[in-house]
This record gives sequence, structure tokens and C-alpha cells, in this order.
Amino acid sequence: MSKKIFLSGIQPSGRPHIGNYFGAMKQFVELQQEYAGFVIIVDYHALHSLRDAKEMRENIIAVLLDFLAIGLDPKKVTIFKQSDISEHTELTWIFDTITTMPYLMRAHAFKDALAKDKEIDVGTFNYPVLMAADILLYSPDLVPVGADQKQHVEICRDIAMKFNNVYGETFKLPEPMIMKDVAVVPGTDGRKMSKSYNNTIPLFAEYEEIKKAVMSIVTDSVGGFPKNVYAIHKLIRPEGELKKIYEEKAGKYKELKEMLIEDLERFIVPLREKRKAFEKDIPKALAILKAGGEKAKKIAAAKMAEVREKVGVNVY
Amino acid sequence: MSKKIFLSGIQPSGRPHIGNYFGAMKQFVELQQEYAGFVIIVDYHALHSLRDAKEMRENIIAVLLDFLAIGLDPKKVTIFKQSDISEHTELTWIFDTITTMPYLMRAHAFKDALAKDKEIDVGTFNYPVLMAADILLYSPDLVPVGADQKQHVEICRDIAMKFNNVYGETFKLPEPMIMKDVAVVPGTDGRKMSKSYNNTIPLFAEYEEIKKAVMSIVTDSVGGFPKNVYAIHKLIRPEGELKKIYEEKAGKYKELKEMLIEDLERFIVPLREKRKAFEKDIPKALAILKAGGEKAKKIAAAKMAEVREKVGVNVY
Repeated sequence: MSKKIFLSGIQPSGRPHIGNYFGAMKQFVELQQEYAGFVIIVDYHALHSLRDAKEMRENIIAVLLDFLAIGLDPKKVTIFKQSDISEHTELTWIFDTITTMPYLMRAHAFKDALAKDKEIDVGTFNYPVLMAADILLYSPDLVPVGADQKQHVEICRDIAMKFNNVYGETFKLPEPMIMKDVAVVPGTDGRKMSKSYNNTIPLFAEYEEIKKAVMSIVTDSVGGFPKNVYAIHKLIRPEGELKKIYEEKAGKYKELKEMLIEDLERFIVPLREKRKAFEKDIPKALAILKAGGEKAKKIAAAKMAEVREKVGVNVY
Repeated sequence: MSKKIFLSGIQPSGRPHIGNYFGAMKQFVELQQEYAGFVIIVDYHALHSLRDAKEMRENIIAVLLDFLAIGLDPKKVTIFKQSDISEHTELTWIFDTITTMPYLMRAHAFKDALAKDKEIDVGTFNYPVLMAADILLYSPDLVPVGADQKQHVEICRDIAMKFNNVYGETFKLPEPMIMKDVAVVPGTDGRKMSKSYNNTIPLFAEYEEIKKAVMSIVTDSVGGFPKNVYAIHKLIRPEGELKKIYEEKAGKYKELKEMLIEDLERFIVPLREKRKAFEKDIPKALAILKAGGEKAKKIAAAKMAEVREKVGVNVY
């Protein structure tokens, strides 16, 4: 029996932090033990917020190196780039013709974006349709997403059902896999770790960066227990061990932070070194991306041929 | 100096009538004397109203035969099918990310469609963006359109300017060429000739069909002058000649209609015969379409490579 398949898209949006790692990236590495996978660098999704060619290229390469460094195995997971597979946007158009405006306008992400800025672009509105194409071309069983993306998987399922309904059984309905609680990793100020809050610890941080970030952790704590320090610490060290240490060292914030720095350094070192090794051979990393694209292209082209047959645009 | 270029899209929407011929089709045949041309069978545009694979395939082939029969010369005009060139939908996505919702919602065609049906599809909304991609990939000088499509060419120009502005000079701004007055050809009831009014004379009509259509022409005329008969008649016979005849035969509606039948038959016979000849060798017609697609693909791919460079998704 062939393995089940997971599929996920990742935005080329700059340097990841440990919140991204524990919230999502790590889970792809775990999933690849049991599942075959597709991990897509969704550069065409990123276009509406990133309009700088140099930065786009750097971010695409960076996110590729990030995922190779954390242990994504190209033998188990097909890692490729959305813009290498023209079938994604082609299928998006076809889905656009069977998706109604009022339906798509009910998407939360669209409504949130519109609330912030009336001059929202059509790409932001059409985002869930491209995401549906990203997914459905590869017939995955599971789509691991954050809770905020759950509705997009539902939209994807609705579009698949609509197409199957209009043109006959074509697409397999994927299941969303909502990523576990660990997803909300606290930042140095206790809020969700997020670049926009400027409260992150970079995943591939150098020692000095780790030190600076940890020293900035806000310790508005009760009874000598620095909960923000603890919340990060427990990501990388068993709670059984930690609880004892934090009780013994109650009130000794500086000491606890120093311990966290050393533990983070120990956790990050192998990742950082692996990433540096990949950085030294970018052509090798790009060859992996390209090979992934070639593999994905075959699958996408076969599915698209089926779609073209169903809608009647194949005449040769 | 190389020839100037015209470009136009045609919907695979079934049997053409003489209104389509005198309003648009004929002008492509005239333009090819002076211009190089691209004539695109826009099957992906048609999808939102045509969801039957068999009919889609038949219509694509039919419109191809129609244009070959009226004398479109594949040596002068590249005739191809939108869905053969994935660059059209790919560029549409990129344009979507630089086009705002409020801007696109101002399109007349969208507003008209929405007024009729709230459950309008996203493809209808996004239609002008795909049309912009259809055009801009081939850098045409002229885009012949009906008056109702003028705004779409303006949207195309706006999108080209926006892209050039954000990413640097890339697209040439095309000029609309509003097709002349003859565009509004009257139907058998005096209203604009249109399939939806059921008042057409098919371009490749058999003699019996011509007869039936002409006999049904409404003759609510004053002073013995059947203006609806005359309005059609003058498309195929010089007005100098006609005026005299209509004066002589004032009130003799049956005789005038019979004369129109014979004149239409004389006009249609060579077109009908040429179409039948093409019908006998569909593979030959399809080979022309395929070759056109291959030629168009090269141009579209080169332009798209430039676009991918500009937006930064090329990393290899």
C-alpha cells in the first residue's frame, strides 16, 4: 500500500523564528516519517505583499535552506516552488469560473484584510482559490494548517465538490490537520511570537542574538516565577526537569535566563551548522528545488490533463 | 521595418451570424492585409458560461473553421487557443496581485452582470485581468473591439502601466480600435442582430435557412419602404444600386425579400463552400491551430520569462 500524503505551503517571508519551528516546520519533519509529502514554497501567494525582486529571490532561497536545515528529506518530501508549476494558476482560473463572488467574500481572511484596507488587491481575494489549486493538483490526504487557515481548507473542499459535481468526479477531498496547541509559541513579551510584535527568537540565531533576545524577555512575574522565560524554556527541555529547577531558583531571573540561553544555544547549534553547510552550496540546494519541481510537474500535468478533458478544452 | 500587430480574442460561442461577420470577423480579414495578427480562441473566458465539455470542444473547432472559411490566413495571422498557452492564466495571477478590488469592481461589464445575478462567478469578475494578460503577452499595437469592450482595453492599459510602474518598463500599451458603425447589424426584427433575440441570419446558412430568415423579416414600414429588409440588404450590395431598386419596387415586399434571398445566397455560397471544405479535413484545421499555439507559446514564454525576472521568482 502506498503511503498517505501530506501537503503544505510555506511563504517565502524571511527569517523563521522558533515560533514558526515549533508551530509548523517541525511537524513537517515529523510527518515525513509516516507520510509522503509535498512542501510548496508559495512565491505566487507572497507576491501581493512582496514586490521586490531581489528580496523575493533571497527569501525563496532562504526558506529552501531553512527547510533543508531542519531535516526535511527530499527523498521523502517533494519540495518545490509554486511558480515552477504553471498548472497552479491555470487551475485557479478554472476554479474561478465555478466559484461565486458572494461565496468567496465570506472568507475570514478576506474580510479581515478588507477591514484594514479597502484597496485590497484581487490576489488577496482570490488567494483561497489558488490555495485550493495548490492542494488539489496533488491529491493529498492531509493538509496540516494553523487554526487560522482551517477555513481555507474548507473552501478547498467546497471547490473540489463543486467541480466534481459540475464536471464529474475528479478531485479527492483533503482533510485539514489542525496543528497542535504548541502552535502558539510565546514571544519575549509573552504575546504570540511574531515578527510583527518584534518579540522573536530567530531559529538559526547566533549565540549573541539568542543572548540578546532572552535578556529582553519580560519578567513581570508573580511569586518569583518568570512565566515568559519558562514558556519558552519548556519547548526545548522536559517540563519534569524544568519545574524542579524553576522552584529551586525562584526569583533568580538572571540565572534562569542564562540557563535558557545555554539550552537554546545547545538546541540551535546543530540546526545553525546544518544551515551554514547548505549555505555554502546554494547550487546544490537549488538542484533539489528544481528536481522537486520536475517531480511535481509530472503529477500536476497529469491532473491538469484530466481537468482539461473534463471541461472540454482539449481538442487535439 | 516589421509590421504592426493587431490582436483579438474570439469566444467559442457557437454558430456566427452575418452580424458577427460584418461587425467584427470581416475586419480581421481586412486587417491582415496590413498587420500581423493574433486571433485567440478564448476558451478559458468561455468556461464560466459553457460548462459542457462536448459543446466546448465542438465550439472551439467550429469557430476555428469559421475563421479559416472567411479567409483568415494562418501565414499572416497566428490563430491559436488560449488554453494552449499557460502563460495567460499565470500572468493573470500576477496581475491580480497588483490590481485592487475597488478598481476592478468599477468595470461596466461586471456591474451589469452583477445587476442581473448576485451569484456571479469570480471568473466573470476577473475577466478583464485575463483579457489584459491575453493582450499584453503579445505586445500588439492595436486591439480591435466593439464599443462595449473599450473599457476592457483601458483596464488592460492601466494594468500594464501599474506593472511597469512597480517592476520597471515591461509592457507596451496597446491602442483600442473601436470597430466602425457597421458593427450594429440589424436583425430580422430591426433590433441589433443577436442570438439572444432569435433574429439572426447565420453566416454559413443553407439556402432554405436564408429563405426562412428573410421571410421572417418584420416589415412595419412606412411609404412602402421595408427598412429592415433594406438595412440587411445594404450590407451586401452597394447603396447606390439598392436605393433605385427599392424606389422602383416600393411596396413590393415579397419581391424585395426574394431579391435579398438571392443576394444573400450569392454572398454566402463561397463562404459556405469553403467552410464545408475545411469541415472535411478537421485534422488539417487542428494542425493549423496547434502550429499557431506553438508560435504563440514562444512569444508568450519569452515575455513571461521577462516578467518572472522582474518579480523575482526565477532563482535558477
